[in-house]
Formats: sequence, C-alpha cells, structure tokens
Amino acid sequence: MSAPLPHSLPTGLPPALPRGRIICAGLGPGDPELMSVRADRAIRAARHVAYFRKPGRQGQARRIVRGMLAPGAVEYPMEYPVTTELPFDGADYNDLLSGFYDDWTARLQSLVAQGHEVVVLCEGDPFFYGSFMHLYVRLQGRVPVEVIPGIPGMVGCWNATQVPISWGDDVLTVLMGTLPEPELIRHMRGADALAIMKTGRNLPRVRRALAAAGRLEDAWLIERGTMEDQRLARLVEVDAADCPYFAIVLVHGRGRRPIAAVRSA
Amino acid sequence: MSAPLPHSLPTGLPPALPRGRIICAGLGPGDPELMSVRADRAIRAARHVAYFRKPGRQGQARRIVRGMLAPGAVEYPMEYPVTTELPFDGADYNDLLSGFYDDWTARLQSLVAQGHEVVVLCEGDPFFYGSFMHLYVRLQGRVPVEVIPGIPGMVGCWNATQVPISWGDDVLTVLMGTLPEPELIRHMRGADALAIMKTGRNLPRVRRALAAAGRLEDAWLIERGTMEDQRLARLVEVDAADCPYFAIVLVHGRGRRPIAAVRSA
Repeated sequence: MSAPLPHSLPTGLPPALPRGRIICAGLGPGDPELMSVRADRAIRAARHVAYFRKPGRQGQARRIVRGMLAPGAVEYPMEYPVTTELPFDGADYNDLLSGFYDDWTARLQSLVAQGHEVVVLCEGDPFFYGSFMHLYVRLQGRVPVEVIPGIPGMVGCWNATQVPISWGDDVLTVLMGTLPEPELIRHMRGADALAIMKTGRNLPRVRRALAAAGRLEDAWLIERGTMEDQRLARLVEVDAADCPYFAIVLVHGRGRRPIAAVRSA
Repeated sequence: MSAPLPHSLPTGLPPALPRGRIICAGLGPGDPELMSVRADRAIRAARHVAYFRKPGRQGQARRIVRGMLAPGAVEYPMEYPVTTELPFDGADYNDLLSGFYDDWTARLQSLVAQGHEVVVLCEGDPFFYGSFMHLYVRLQGRVPVEVIPGIPGMVGCWNATQVPISWGDDVLTVLMGTLPEPELIRHMRGADALAIMKTGRNLPRVRRALAAAGRLEDAWLIERGTMEDQRLARLVEVDAADCPYFAIVLVHGRGRRPIAAVRSA
C-alpha cells in the first residue's frame, strides 16, 4: 500500500529533476553470465542504453546483452563514422573520430541534463583499451560518471584455454598487433607471458614477430573467447590467410613454477 | 504439480551418486558486487566451500563472501603452513607447500568422490597468479574442474584511480615486486603502463626501480582496491617505512592517444 499523499504540495516550483548520470557498464569477455552483479543489475534496470557499433552491424556490445534490456528501454547505437582498423596516425581519421566523440558527448550530456541515467555498454573492462575512455575524458567534470569494471577480454580468452596464463614471478606483457615489428619482437623476447590484441589484419606481422622471438610454437589464437561460438587454435595451425576478427593471441608463462606439480611441463 | 511416480522403482541398486566436481569461483577485486553473475550464483548455492588463508586470519577470500554463504554450508579453510612472503627458491619452502597442496588435493578429491560439489574461492581471476592453480594442476584429469573467471585485482585497482590504465598502442607490463631490481628497471623502462604486484616488503625495491626508470613520479599505490577501506596514494607520498599488505603499484599509460581530447594531458 502506498503512503498517503501529503495534504498540500509545495506550489510555484517545478518538481526537482532526478539527478542524471552516465554509468559505463563493463560487459566482460562475452558470456553474459561473466559480467559483474552490479553491471547486470544496471543494464536490466536501464531506461537509456548507448553502445558503439560499426555501421551495418548489430555490434558486439549489444549482442552480449541480448535479452537483458527492459521493455521500452531507449537505445542509442553510436555508429563509428569509419572502421577502427584504419591506422591511428592519419589526421583525417583523427578529425573524423574526434568529431564523432564530441557529438556523442554532447548528446549524452543533454540526456543527463534532462535527468536521465544513461547506461553505456563497453566490452571487457572500460579502462583497459576501451573506446569509452574517449567519451569519459570529455564527460569528466561535466556530468557524474560511474564506471563499473569488467573482466577484460584477454582474461576470458586465457580461461578458454584452461591453462593459467601466469604464475610465480612471470612477467606478463600486453601488446597491440598494430605496433612495429621490431618493437613486437623486443617485447616478446622480454616477457614470460604474452597477450596480443588488435590482431585482425595485423596477424601476419604478429606471427612473424613471434617466430623471430622464438615464441610461435607456444602461441594460441582465441576468437570470441567465452562466447558460444568461441574458437581456439594453435597459431601455427591457423591458415596464414585467415584473418579472424575479435581474436587475441596468447602465450602462457611458465614462470619459476615455485611448486613441483603433477602436470608435465 | 509433480509428475506421478512410476508404478515400480528398480530395486537392488543403490541410488546413483550425484556427480561431484570442483568449481573454482573467481571473486574479483574485493567488492562482492564485482564478482560475476555466475560466481555469485555458485557461491550462494554452495554446500561445500573451500578457501586459502594464512593461519590466524579470516582470509581475504572468505571476507569477500561475507553474508553470501547458505546456512549450513560446510567450510574448509585451507591454512597455509607458512607465510607466502618467503622467497620462492628455498627448497624447504617448496617441500612444505607442495605437501600442503598434495594434502588438500586428496581431501577435495575425496569430497568429489562422495558426490559433492565443492566451490573453491579465489580472489581476482584464478588463472592470473592465483594460488588455486597449484590445486588445479593436481586435480586435472582426476575430477571435473570448472573455473569461473574473475576481474583481476589490478583491474579493480586501476578502476579505483578513475583513470584509464591503457589506450591506443600502449604496452602494459605486469611485474612481481619479487623480481631482481635490474630486471624490474629494464621492464619499467620498456613499457608504457605498469602494474606491479607482490609489493609488501618488496616496496622499497620497487620504489628504487621506478625512480631509476624515471617512472616514480607517475606511480600510484592502491591498497584493497574496490573494497570499503581502499586507500589510494601517489607512491612518492607514501612513507618509505610503510609496508602495506595487499597493495598494487600502477603507472598509467599515455599511449599514442589517438584522439585529441578535452582533458589536459
């Protein structure tokens, strides 16, 4: 039973707007059950949901929350003006993307000003190579922003291999496949465990660098880790012409394995 | 309404034992709401719960699930025979710990043989420098083991700083404070972003190495990231005699910041 209404309501003043804010929900690696309890709750309760996607695609983030959005939730697909596969150093690319982020910052800010809470979906962890940070740096100080961490994609991928990625004193290095080959080789030689992201069309270079560093035999390619259609293969066995999307290359550390274990290694 | 019972039940055979297994639930960085939906459900439903702890302590893992365990759940605190702060290369330490893991492997295996499902709690992500892997390699092939990924502690820590750890083509390197100082310095010079774990009494060495690599001014110390009593400080401002437990040192990447942003950097 609801509480009785007060005898008289204050008049002359508009009702106070609810306090709007942005919540960026880290979605984790892809399996919807691997998002955090807090992200799950925020997404199911959301009235306004925004997410990045490439033009003409449903988008990975939207796909992960399939069946979770409340009826009537308003969706804001933020469509990239161009593919993200372009080199980062082009001035045209920078201008185009910068304008795109500026526009969406203004639109999200306007929703918050109207008192809305907007949940922005972000694959993996928003603060770990996430696209959201381009909105985040623009929104900071203007509107309240809450970020909910998520399990990074690479964590889902190494769990998919069912082998620990690192232990003991292992050094783990995370590399982007977009780096120059000599830089890749140097880092691959120096670390025990490796996670290489942004592979895609950079995969041939990543493969050459791993071979030069003597790590190719130990490398795994994981596509869509933790998702229903995940694919797991030794990189040496992947066809050289294959150029998988949304894939991560992993090399497991062997560490100083402190404890004698049953497993042969 | 339940289905009617069959007219006659087979007799002479004992009822089949339920199929036992081990579930290792990654707990995430500390805030219970940051564990995955799947881990949350497994822990609340568990009848048998095992977790590591140091003698005389409640244990960080047990503390995270406070208030979540079902009434009557049986607990198995797996108490380390010694502190984990000892150097990894001592033979006595190795023997002692190896026997400890062997013992618990046998006990867990026996519970599974009796048809029980045992949930083993593991802070962070079980496959990322987790203690569970010492049981995992022993249990593999003997009993069914399911591992539920979690948000690594370092991810919770960089979220606590409210600054993205890495973007663009940043190289992120994860280091253990137990590494020799020259090795620390070399890796600190080579990477854009850094996460340094196992600090504790190694903190003075970590600090010296960061200074030698020219990264000390940018370093943050985060204790108990995402927990109620989290503490965040610039490492240069932390008292040199301070030797915090369960702390991670972070240096944020600056990357090739692809997009011009509002934020001054």
